[in-house]
Amino acid sequence: MVKFHTEYLTFNTPKRREYLNITRTVEEILSRSAIREGMILVSAMHITAGVYVNDAEDGLIQDIDDMLDRLAPLGPDYRHHRTGEDNGDAHLKSMLCHHQVVVPVTDGKLDFGPWQQIYYAEFDGRRRKRVIVKVMGE
Amino acid sequence: MVKFHTEYLTFNTPKRREYLNITRTVEEILSRSAIREGMILVSAMHITAGVYVNDAEDGLIQDIDDMLDRLAPLGPDYRHHRTGEDNGDAHLKSMLCHHQVVVPVTDGKLDFGPWQQIYYAEFDGRRRKRVIVKVMGE
Amino acid sequence: MVKFHTEYLTFNTPKRREYLNITRTVEEILSRSAIREGMILVSAMHITAGVYVNDAEDGLIQDIDDMLDRLAPLGPDYRHHRTGEDNGDAHLKSMLCHHQVVVPVTDGKLDFGPWQQIYYAEFDGRRRKRVIVKVMGE
Repeated sequence: MVKFHTEYLTFNTPKRREYLNITRTVEEILSRSAIREGMILVSAMHITAGVYVNDAEDGLIQDIDDMLDRLAPLGPDYRHHRTGEDNGDAHLKSMLCHHQVVVPVTDGKLDFGPWQQIYYAEFDGRRRKRVIVKVMGE
Repeated sequence: MVKFHTEYLTFNTPKRREYLNITRTVEEILSRSAIREGMILVSAMHITAGVYVNDAEDGLIQDIDDMLDRLAPLGPDYRHHRTGEDNGDAHLKSMLCHHQVVVPVTDGKLDFGPWQQIYYAEFDGRRRKRVIVKVMGE
Repeated sequence: MVKFHTEYLTFNTPKRREYLNITRTVEEILSRSAIREGMILVSAMHITAGVYVNDAEDGLIQDIDDMLDRLAPLGPDYRHHRTGEDNGDAHLKSMLCHHQVVVPVTDGKLDFGPWQQIYYAEFDGRRRKRVIVKVMGE
């Protein structure tokens, strides 16, 4: 009997860009869902944020930030800024990082390798942002 | 009772690169599916196109195109062109953009934040291309 | 009646970077699952590998490798290397390539366009790595 369980995470980061490990939170949602087998969609609800799976290592997180800012730099020259916005880079970083992951669930657990952690990547913080976590399975 | 509902979109853009908002079309497919809770896979069926979620703002769309062409430029020097093709850049743009998204469905609606829109990104148009939209849920 | 079927692929590539076509293997897993309608999650279990869908053309595969190494170069200067690791580039390549795809299943087959193939992208090989393949459907 397939069930669905949906929760929403809310963030309001003090800095413009931050990388938050949300693995534990997703595990708690999975536990509340009582789903043992299936998939979890973890997806940013904003277009200036990302969700990704990688390592919980501070140096690497800075390397990721460096790369994203090298490929999609913070700066004044985006066409998007003609609308009055200043966050063109954040939209592009969201594109490169991707805004969602699907996490496999087996035997009631995130079916992850040894180093996989789920991160929320904020690229335009200092405002209220949301992530949907939807568990689908049985 | 989980159901599946699959439809295919067809595109044939006049320009080599175009970005088309398909949110309304996906909503109509969801409506026809009568699924209230679940997920929608929206996935390009070609390897020179992408599907992404971001803002319906013309300046930003041009910024996205600029970035993708900066990171994977249109040009003659790809090894892939030894096969007679001229679209190496389109394959690489598809990689960076990603070719699919999974859209959460809650209460019969796309469970999106305020600015999220689904785009089909054509990187090698002027020919018939398809996208699969598969709704899974109940 | 929705079913779930999970298998794990193991790789140990002789080279640091390799791109392996796993389409046939995923088709065999789908066949064993006896699922006719649904989705397959194909997801790397390591954070220095990727899974993507694109063309089975050797020149293009080299173009993809060139692009990823241009955007996230192999080199000594990553902060992550202060931990004693030397694979910072592999983490970043995994981010850009993305570590997973969702494959639609219709009528017992991968519902793909004519040129779509599933690739495992190894960015830090010469060790045992795994990919999860989870089929969900009926």
